[in-house]
Amino acid sequence: MKNDIESAYITEGIHEECGVFGIYDFDGNDVASSIYYGLFALQHRGQESCGIAVSDTKGSGGKVKSIKGMGLVNEVFTPDSFEKLSGNIGVGHVRYSTAGGSTPENTQPLVLNYVKGTLALAHNGNLVNALELKDELAYTGAIFQTTIDSEVIAYLIARERLKAVSLEEAIRKTMEKLRGAYSLVIMSAKKLIGARDPFGFKPLCIGKKDNCYVLASESCALDGVDAEFIRDVEPGEVVMIDEEGIHSDTSLVQSKKAKCIFEYIYFARPDSHVDNVSVYNSRIMAGRLLAQIHPVEADLVVGVPDSGNAAAMGYSFESGIQYATAFVKNSYVGRTFIKPKQAMRESSVRIKLNVLTDVVKGKRVIMIDDSIVRGTTSERIVRMLKNAGATEVHVRISSPPFLYPCYFGTDVPSGDQLIAYNNTVEQIREIIGADSLGYLSVDRLSELIKGDEGYCDACFSGNYPIEPPKQDIRGEFER
Amino acid sequence: MKNDIESAYITEGIHEECGVFGIYDFDGNDVASSIYYGLFALQHRGQESCGIAVSDTKGSGGKVKSIKGMGLVNEVFTPDSFEKLSGNIGVGHVRYSTAGGSTPENTQPLVLNYVKGTLALAHNGNLVNALELKDELAYTGAIFQTTIDSEVIAYLIARERLKAVSLEEAIRKTMEKLRGAYSLVIMSAKKLIGARDPFGFKPLCIGKKDNCYVLASESCALDGVDAEFIRDVEPGEVVMIDEEGIHSDTSLVQSKKAKCIFEYIYFARPDSHVDNVSVYNSRIMAGRLLAQIHPVEADLVVGVPDSGNAAAMGYSFESGIQYATAFVKNSYVGRTFIKPKQAMRESSVRIKLNVLTDVVKGKRVIMIDDSIVRGTTSERIVRMLKNAGATEVHVRISSPPFLYPCYFGTDVPSGDQLIAYNNTVEQIREIIGADSLGYLSVDRLSELIKGDEGYCDACFSGNYPIEPPKQDIRGEFER
Amino acid sequence: MKNDIESAYITEGIHEECGVFGIYDFDGNDVASSIYYGLFALQHRGQESCGIAVSDTKGSGGKVKSIKGMGLVNEVFTPDSFEKLSGNIGVGHVRYSTAGGSTPENTQPLVLNYVKGTLALAHNGNLVNALELKDELAYTGAIFQTTIDSEVIAYLIARERLKAVSLEEAIRKTMEKLRGAYSLVIMSAKKLIGARDPFGFKPLCIGKKDNCYVLASESCALDGVDAEFIRDVEPGEVVMIDEEGIHSDTSLVQSKKAKCIFEYIYFARPDSHVDNVSVYNSRIMAGRLLAQIHPVEADLVVGVPDSGNAAAMGYSFESGIQYATAFVKNSYVGRTFIKPKQAMRESSVRIKLNVLTDVVKGKRVIMIDDSIVRGTTSERIVRMLKNAGATEVHVRISSPPFLYPCYFGTDVPSGDQLIAYNNTVEQIREIIGADSLGYLSVDRLSELIKGDEGYCDACFSGNYPIEPPKQDIRGEFER
Amino acid sequence: MKNDIESAYITEGIHEECGVFGIYDFDGNDVASSIYYGLFALQHRGQESCGIAVSDTKGSGGKVKSIKGMGLVNEVFTPDSFEKLSGNIGVGHVRYSTAGGSTPENTQPLVLNYVKGTLALAHNGNLVNALELKDELAYTGAIFQTTIDSEVIAYLIARERLKAVSLEEAIRKTMEKLRGAYSLVIMSAKKLIGARDPFGFKPLCIGKKDNCYVLASESCALDGVDAEFIRDVEPGEVVMIDEEGIHSDTSLVQSKKAKCIFEYIYFARPDSHVDNVSVYNSRIMAGRLLAQIHPVEADLVVGVPDSGNAAAMGYSFESGIQYATAFVKNSYVGRTFIKPKQAMRESSVRIKLNVLTDVVKGKRVIMIDDSIVRGTTSERIVRMLKNAGATEVHVRISSPPFLYPCYFGTDVPSGDQLIAYNNTVEQIREIIGADSLGYLSVDRLSELIKGDEGYCDACFSGNYPIEPPKQDIRGEFER
Repeated sequence: MKNDIESAYITEGIHEECGVFGIYDFDGNDVASSIYYGLFALQHRGQESCGIAVSDTKGSGGKVKSIKGMGLVNEVFTPDSFEKLSGNIGVGHVRYSTAGGSTPENTQPLVLNYVKGTLALAHNGNLVNALELKDELAYTGAIFQTTIDSEVIAYLIARERLKAVSLEEAIRKTMEKLRGAYSLVIMSAKKLIGARDPFGFKPLCIGKKDNCYVLASESCALDGVDAEFIRDVEPGEVVMIDEEGIHSDTSLVQSKKAKCIFEYIYFARPDSHVDNVSVYNSRIMAGRLLAQIHPVEADLVVGVPDSGNAAAMGYSFESGIQYATAFVKNSYVGRTFIKPKQAMRESSVRIKLNVLTDVVKGKRVIMIDDSIVRGTTSERIVRMLKNAGATEVHVRISSPPFLYPCYFGTDVPSGDQLIAYNNTVEQIREIIGADSLGYLSVDRLSELIKGDEGYCDACFSGNYPIEPPKQDIRGEFER
Repeated sequence: MKNDIESAYITEGIHEECGVFGIYDFDGNDVASSIYYGLFALQHRGQESCGIAVSDTKGSGGKVKSIKGMGLVNEVFTPDSFEKLSGNIGVGHVRYSTAGGSTPENTQPLVLNYVKGTLALAHNGNLVNALELKDELAYTGAIFQTTIDSEVIAYLIARERLKAVSLEEAIRKTMEKLRGAYSLVIMSAKKLIGARDPFGFKPLCIGKKDNCYVLASESCALDGVDAEFIRDVEPGEVVMIDEEGIHSDTSLVQSKKAKCIFEYIYFARPDSHVDNVSVYNSRIMAGRLLAQIHPVEADLVVGVPDSGNAAAMGYSFESGIQYATAFVKNSYVGRTFIKPKQAMRESSVRIKLNVLTDVVKGKRVIMIDDSIVRGTTSERIVRMLKNAGATEVHVRISSPPFLYPCYFGTDVPSGDQLIAYNNTVEQIREIIGADSLGYLSVDRLSELIKGDEGYCDACFSGNYPIEPPKQDIRGEFER
Repeated sequence: MKNDIESAYITEGIHEECGVFGIYDFDGNDVASSIYYGLFALQHRGQESCGIAVSDTKGSGGKVKSIKGMGLVNEVFTPDSFEKLSGNIGVGHVRYSTAGGSTPENTQPLVLNYVKGTLALAHNGNLVNALELKDELAYTGAIFQTTIDSEVIAYLIARERLKAVSLEEAIRKTMEKLRGAYSLVIMSAKKLIGARDPFGFKPLCIGKKDNCYVLASESCALDGVDAEFIRDVEPGEVVMIDEEGIHSDTSLVQSKKAKCIFEYIYFARPDSHVDNVSVYNSRIMAGRLLAQIHPVEADLVVGVPDSGNAAAMGYSFESGIQYATAFVKNSYVGRTFIKPKQAMRESSVRIKLNVLTDVVKGKRVIMIDDSIVRGTTSERIVRMLKNAGATEVHVRISSPPFLYPCYFGTDVPSGDQLIAYNNTVEQIREIIGADSLGYLSVDRLSELIKGDEGYCDACFSGNYPIEPPKQDIRGEFER
Repeated sequence: MKNDIESAYITEGIHEECGVFGIYDFDGNDVASSIYYGLFALQHRGQESCGIAVSDTKGSGGKVKSIKGMGLVNEVFTPDSFEKLSGNIGVGHVRYSTAGGSTPENTQPLVLNYVKGTLALAHNGNLVNALELKDELAYTGAIFQTTIDSEVIAYLIARERLKAVSLEEAIRKTMEKLRGAYSLVIMSAKKLIGARDPFGFKPLCIGKKDNCYVLASESCALDGVDAEFIRDVEPGEVVMIDEEGIHSDTSLVQSKKAKCIFEYIYFARPDSHVDNVSVYNSRIMAGRLLAQIHPVEADLVVGVPDSGNAAAMGYSFESGIQYATAFVKNSYVGRTFIKPKQAMRESSVRIKLNVLTDVVKGKRVIMIDDSIVRGTTSERIVRMLKNAGATEVHVRISSPPFLYPCYFGTDVPSGDQLIAYNNTVEQIREIIGADSLGYLSVDRLSELIKGDEGYCDACFSGNYPIEPPKQDIRGEFER
């Protein structure tokens, strides 16, 4: 029976694995509803589970109240939730995970008691040395109740706290042991702390609203709570917000960065600015580059909704070819819908996406998408365009071909499931039925972010900024 | 507590009140899943409740199985539903209603037993003489268990059936008594019947797939089940589908038509064709007309998602001004989300819609929307654009001002709640904070549908094709 | 999957099909919570669905608010329900039905609009001429949206109201047409009405609390709302409660009664008084009679919980043999629990009922139960006693053998499913593995109710007080 | 809103805090459904939450699948649950807790990974040195994700495992550190282990069915799965079940025992045998003792359902006074029902319990209950009897007065909430309105269990077998 349910968001494309949010209200107002709206704005970063944990900096003695659950933000929280979640400091989390780890135990924020009181921790990213660290901890008596590496981070902080004077110090010491990607938002009884790994794989930024400080994965979440963008947390930086205000420890900041380039291409919301670059602009640029690298004579440029639209517009700007809307997306298809039987398979895509026949009929169409993973969806969309009367369909992809797995927090699968791993571009073109096919080239990716070279493109190039684990531990972590 | 829940789809804009779907599979295959996909494609026509009723033309003796419920299609139906709903003939319905009538009793399809067996009835539209007919029926002993006028139609058919030979005849006789808007899909033990009022207020079309006939409110639902569009049901026509195939009774067809023009402007999905006109094209045309009537010097034309986009593109085509995407819509905001407290009110709009600052900053922007009802939302969006740095915001509305209530199945409110009823265009401009404001003019509406004059624009002009009821019975119907 | 779920209450024994409740508060207080508590006390009369409908005698113009649903009273109603259900007059209903008719449409109270306003109707009992009446109505244009005969009653009342002056008159005229069992509680805009069929098959009584009148199926529901018992509604009587107080129409009262004897034996709660007879006392009497008719030498008398306990006590009183508790009932086994696989079948009974080994070990046990339907449960319980060490098990049944179907509102099945229909008492004894078996004899049933002869024992004797329908329409009603 | 919901099971009387169950099937069959039925039989030991964890001794490498949730067994588990829970070894838990700790995090079994693999742990009882142990662990880097002391036990086992050769050894070493009450069922990848604290506060027994071994809090759960009772686990014993069969470590067995006497009086199910004593028989004995200590002239002895019935029967045996059933209990009042408003308060008790007026009217009644905590319920029941016509009501309590808190796993409150702490017996008699009142005396408690002196009666006598914690940490544990 389960197999008849297709989770529309989950089975297609590549997924970001988390979004984090934190807030501290110095006026003592409840913050749970702000976290709720912040998580709404970050929902695209994870749709499997979510949670909010809050505390009161005055009087509660660090007692943490939390509600977590499987599902979307608007499924897990009800008006009653906010009655329970009183407190002026809090963190929130949205999560996507591979099927194996999708359990109630693994929802975040992780809430825990340790020698110095309570902590709530929200984590975006993936460690590459989690197993080693976990083994080490286990050999000194740790027990694990989840299969997320955030629990490892929590343990390390707790252990460091035994030695160190301050929480900040403990976090810094912990960061020295962690290898991989992590943007963290941590709440203690009286402090809100943000931390970002020295490579800066995953984004994290700071905002301010009235007498509140806010931390969020993306600036769109600041907009969602009407907070003003202050700045990004620097890779390697630890930001502490407490009653004395905001201060920062940059001792782990290093020169080499490895910001995930796919955040710009696909993950982040176009209205976000990540590390001083407008996500929207970098997508426009991706389209422009495609027009330069893979020009073609055509009547229209169209984007595959929603992520392909900006690049399509960029292609149009650069090439002078007319931009058009060719698809209608059904916004009512939720996280799960019942998958049609064999005979209806074809319409599965059409339920979510339908072609505007009047737009494409008799036209030579350039279709822009952000990526091709397995090729199945692309093939169907090309066919839909041709069935609707497009005379030619030229596919342009606003990223290079996926060739290598990602170990830093996204679910790019291993090679044998990647169409580009097993096929040449020409073969892929044939498989998806396009008249021509062009990818963005690896060597021009830096142009998406104004020439900044501090990014990670390992999923395209295989150049891992940190040595990947010997074996692919993703999914195996729960051994 | 209830008041804290805002139903995002329901409280804003004008709503279509229903969508209908029917299918007959001559090969005897189960049709429930096709109805499910058809209703998905029609979900924009009603998000409050939905239902499916099926029967088996062979052997079941007309026994109807049905599942109905409050909520979206993907909330009401589960994989288990389809085990229960076996049968090769069926009808489906999606519904929106004014708050008062939003109850389990009023969900459709209406399923009933009468002297000749069973009927299931799905109705889109509103009668203007429902109260008179209801009174008449009551005075001959009818009892009513719902407050929908579809029950009146069912009664009349049952009464006519006592006299008439055939179901088709009974439906035709019933139609002679009905005044108002109705597109009906009716299922009896062995027949599927479609009927459309002589004015053709609401759309209804016919499709075919393999050995199935399909009836649907819009052609996008035919696409949703991979059926081929055959033709629209003619206003006044009754279409019968039974084991002998499809035949038609056009004796009530008249020359005067009154097709709802707002279907083209807003209700219908852009990928639908309604009465031989592409909805998308008529929106492009609306934009072109706006550019002709209300030209203005500017840097960008942007649409308010999703419905304003096509008209914005049309404006761009006609004016030569650059089309752009200025907004990001949060597709995870579902039917209900928890409304922020006073202090956060502003962000309520930003959760659903955020501005791409990089696009509009320093630009003179033409913003296209389909309509203004109360003005609140427009005012907020204009403000968002200005806050994002737009130097001028020129609002263009792809319909004339709403001035009169609609009695035919949409929820255009009565005058005092309509901003245009109490204010001049200049006053509205000031209220919403725009630098200029222009509406589409009533006298050019026919151009949206290729010059066809058979449309209803009563909500704009007050020219009701059928005399409206003495008093506004909408909402009062449940007296 | 469905088949793995066993509905513990539903599959065993014989079921009452409904309980009704009504209340009118002259002080204008809300009555929904009283109805809720009243239905709680009547829950044993129906566990499939329930509902409450209320109105306000002042100012609402008869607008009825109702909440109905599948499930137990504590599943269907929540604290929110009572916010919606404001009103000082109301009716409630609990229902059990055969599987076919167990649908949301068939929940009660039936709420309807008709020529004179609104009615809400709650019905306990079954008509024998429902089909004839339904056909008659259909031939004059009625449509049916449920498969319950209560809808037929509602129609007839509506039709009579067209002719008659008053609602009471209409109800009386309707009663003249109805043949069968019915205890009705009906609410109009300003009146609460109780009516009982002339044979008085099903109970109905009147209570008073402060400035409220209450109607209920059983007096235990009066206790449940702290109301004082006034009297039973007389068979054939119509009781009207309106702003002028309580008055009564006894014109249909006849001498011949046919009160369901099985109410005393099993259906009614022991703390109820039905038609001036204590249900508890009549069960004690049943036990005494069994001791007289079927004496046996033994060490203990035990009852099968809960219904067999009173008769067991009566047997003990009469015989002088020690009464004992031999079983522990698991009160957490709810309406549904998951049925064990084949291998565990045996424990299915033990989950619900376990034997107190220490009580029965080495003892000769007389086991009293209220009835045997198919024999399966009896066989298991006898075996459990023997496995626990009982040396002899003598089964005594406090009713005669079921031989004939009931057409008046309980689900005594047709003959071929009744163990007594196909087997002699000696054969049954062997099947269930008892050392002896004795039933109460038909000719002594009147002693259960102090010698009153006005009762129906058709399920035992075949003496139907009203001619049964030609064919068994139960379950077929939904043709 | 929450305050309107009264949880019927939770707010009255004294509660046992847990029940545990474990099973190992050597034939490799799935055990989840057996655990389900076992937990059903133990539901009276905890109604707030429950859980099942299973593993497969062959091939799964100790991967544990678990489902846990708030609610009753039949609310948390569905047929789908059993598809997920495949495995031939498993543990289950039912739990009641004080309000503060009633959260999803605290549900059991606790499932964890540690250096040697996985463990699932189910715990009944309460440690008195949990805080000290927790502090100790915290100071060596432990983090805590729950507020249950079972997590402390898990940690200690994990730490010991680092040193010790075997799991059994680690458990024994852990037990040397634990002070307080614990009956544990623990599952590792290949073993099922049962352990009981040296005082034997809480029960634990062993059963066998076919090729399965079973561990359960009470023998009634063995009956629930048709398993044969083998023996009780000895206080201080560790029982190991693995592929080589069952073996036992009794090195911690000591001579001094402290079995909870209130298990016999109230907690355990009467069909259970605990430490070789029939719970039913010890209740009969309690009644006999009451008749000896507090004789009184009367017409009837009645029990307050359900727990008072056996003692009432014992009183009857000893005194020769007639035993009778005086109350009807409403078995449909579930875990929560909506509490009446002020005006209806009285009926709150009558909804759950009604008097059989015919039984008690004009009679001198001896009413037996198991305990009096606050006195409110007793007062209402006495009043109900008098209102029903009882001329005298003599209350006999089958336990001594509660005077001291329990620190070993039941929720006997602190003194100021105990009626007996602040009032003499005579004062209590007056408060509850009884004509006489008698308690069982502390010095005769051993007679309930055949003269065995190894029991704990600290809640009555203040003689704590283990020194209680300095401060009352119950509820504070979550500091």
